[in-house]
Amino acid sequence: MAASNDYLGLSADPRVREAARKAIAEHGTSCSGSRLANGTYTLHLELEERLAAFLHREAAVALSTGFQTNLAVSALLGQDDIVLTDQDNHASLRDAVRLGGAVERVFRHNDTKHLEWLLADTPAGSGVLIVTEGVFSMAGDMCDLPRIAELAGQHGARLMLDCAHDLGVLGAGGRGVPELLGLESSVDLVMTTFSKSLASLGGALAGEADVIDYIRHWASPAVFSASMTPASVAAALKALELVEAEPERRRRVMDNAARLRDGLRGLGYEVGSASTPVVPVHVGDFMTCLRLWRALFDAGVFTGAVIHPAVQHGRELIRISATAAHTDAQLDRIIGAFAEAGTAVGVIGPQGAGR
Amino acid sequence: MAASNDYLGLSADPRVREAARKAIAEHGTSCSGSRLANGTYTLHLELEERLAAFLHREAAVALSTGFQTNLAVSALLGQDDIVLTDQDNHASLRDAVRLGGAVERVFRHNDTKHLEWLLADTPAGSGVLIVTEGVFSMAGDMCDLPRIAELAGQHGARLMLDCAHDLGVLGAGGRGVPELLGLESSVDLVMTTFSKSLASLGGALAGEADVIDYIRHWASPAVFSASMTPASVAAALKALELVEAEPERRRRVMDNAARLRDGLRGLGYEVGSASTPVVPVHVGDFMTCLRLWRALFDAGVFTGAVIHPAVQHGRELIRISATAAHTDAQLDRIIGAFAEAGTAVGVIGPQGAGR
Repeated sequence: MAASNDYLGLSADPRVREAARKAIAEHGTSCSGSRLANGTYTLHLELEERLAAFLHREAAVALSTGFQTNLAVSALLGQDDIVLTDQDNHASLRDAVRLGGAVERVFRHNDTKHLEWLLADTPAGSGVLIVTEGVFSMAGDMCDLPRIAELAGQHGARLMLDCAHDLGVLGAGGRGVPELLGLESSVDLVMTTFSKSLASLGGALAGEADVIDYIRHWASPAVFSASMTPASVAAALKALELVEAEPERRRRVMDNAARLRDGLRGLGYEVGSASTPVVPVHVGDFMTCLRLWRALFDAGVFTGAVIHPAVQHGRELIRISATAAHTDAQLDRIIGAFAEAGTAVGVIGPQGAGR
Repeated sequence: MAASNDYLGLSADPRVREAARKAIAEHGTSCSGSRLANGTYTLHLELEERLAAFLHREAAVALSTGFQTNLAVSALLGQDDIVLTDQDNHASLRDAVRLGGAVERVFRHNDTKHLEWLLADTPAGSGVLIVTEGVFSMAGDMCDLPRIAELAGQHGARLMLDCAHDLGVLGAGGRGVPELLGLESSVDLVMTTFSKSLASLGGALAGEADVIDYIRHWASPAVFSASMTPASVAAALKALELVEAEPERRRRVMDNAARLRDGLRGLGYEVGSASTPVVPVHVGDFMTCLRLWRALFDAGVFTGAVIHPAVQHGRELIRISATAAHTDAQLDRIIGAFAEAGTAVGVIGPQGAGR
């Protein structure tokens, strides 16, 4: 398995499993209602309080999927608001802008010159929200947070960061890219999911208490959706505890990612330069991408073929990701499979395969 | 607890719990990825196959929440399509139309004259989709499916039915309002959730294989969202098995609902006439509704205060629902609390309370 987002390897952790099983024993398999109706248990409040404290934010609200968490931002938007959004942002962020009825202006991926140009072009007095991601899910690169935060400050824009893929993994405390770069106070609204490092399903927004309270009461995906199951809340809570208690998991996943990147680069693959758990193996052609995926699959290695609409045409890639649970032998097996499959499909030359 | 949507009482069933716990032991607490990437397990396919067979449909696709399931219908809509939607439809159905960019025309609640007028007014050649609910979530009434199906047939419109609140409960086999009324073949697309009778979290669309396949590959809430957790899939699968195997649960919940309705009507409450598990206690005033809710809560009875935006202003109500798990003593206690609280708040006269 070289394509999981279970970066810290906690989905199979016995303590996380036991927390989920205990919650089922105590509370059943479903809350059978929305948070505002009958679906708020003490567990949900505990998760939100722990998350807010962990992220050093006034408040947090948990929703039933990460997708819906991003969608809930639509409640903050009005027709006169302008959202400046990175071209590679997750689909749920694009959908949120559409649902909120705001004006969407897309800047080229991580192109802060383009962002600056768009900011200068916004009418005075408009509400402006910049939305980008800590670590981009498909290519694994980080946003240029220092420059983006600077621009947001200069133009009085608010800044939202989707930390789905960096929370738990980056930063000494696991608080993601904002912590890693010392810029937590520059980000107004932090989003994360529970389906990556937190070994569960769901998501949360964390920020100012007034904003979170508004989302809780007015965002359609929060108000009109059944709440997280007791098992999922308990799993996320326990995983959050382990994120704090076991920083060695972060070191392990980063070491494993570096080993994958170095190994594949040595074979002649183009894998980008970002130090994150996501390793993009750039292919750039639809059929070649599928053929490489299949050859790897036949060799027993499961990867992700990232094709349109997840990326633009011509930017197809095989996405692999390291987890803290990968053993050295497994990493070597993944690299070995890429050597053979890449040569067979013709993505790398025989000198790579002969390594 | 008089406000749960766990209609069949399966969320606490030991067999459902055990299925969920076993799934956690075998597969962990999270799939850590989307269905199309790394989040499809055999369990997901089994649930979809079982659901399609249960509903007598060619295919079904499961999504991670009911909210997202409705939202996925947006993928079927284009700018030139017209969606005729009941005024009381769930918020997620309204959001789906907005996200799909189609023309939305709202007909007055269950007003088939209004629907007929709107159908006559659609330009020839437009794609037309009628969307309504089997049982409406807040007032518990049923849609006028016979007339709506007739109109859809006459005008060549497609018909989608949200059976979140009737699947598992209505119809001899538990297939909801379409089965109850002998009109299953008139409905093109059936939606259900797993967070009501199926004791889990998630939802599914069932219909023609081509349509379901399209949704699976093109609907943003299906493609770009982490898949249902193993525990939630296993719980829904086991609950579905029990829906088929134990029809006595349906009789019990309907008997319990009738007992609640009759008891409250005897006290002088207006509770509507629909034979469904949802019993709306009409109040019609915001503050009175909240005061009644609080008095019931203080008496140890948890209900739902349904206020704007869940219903229109002036249609505030206390929503209660029967489950198959309610004992006779619990039902009597609920009715007794309504007698005292209603008199104290002034919603019913003292003759009611003196009963």
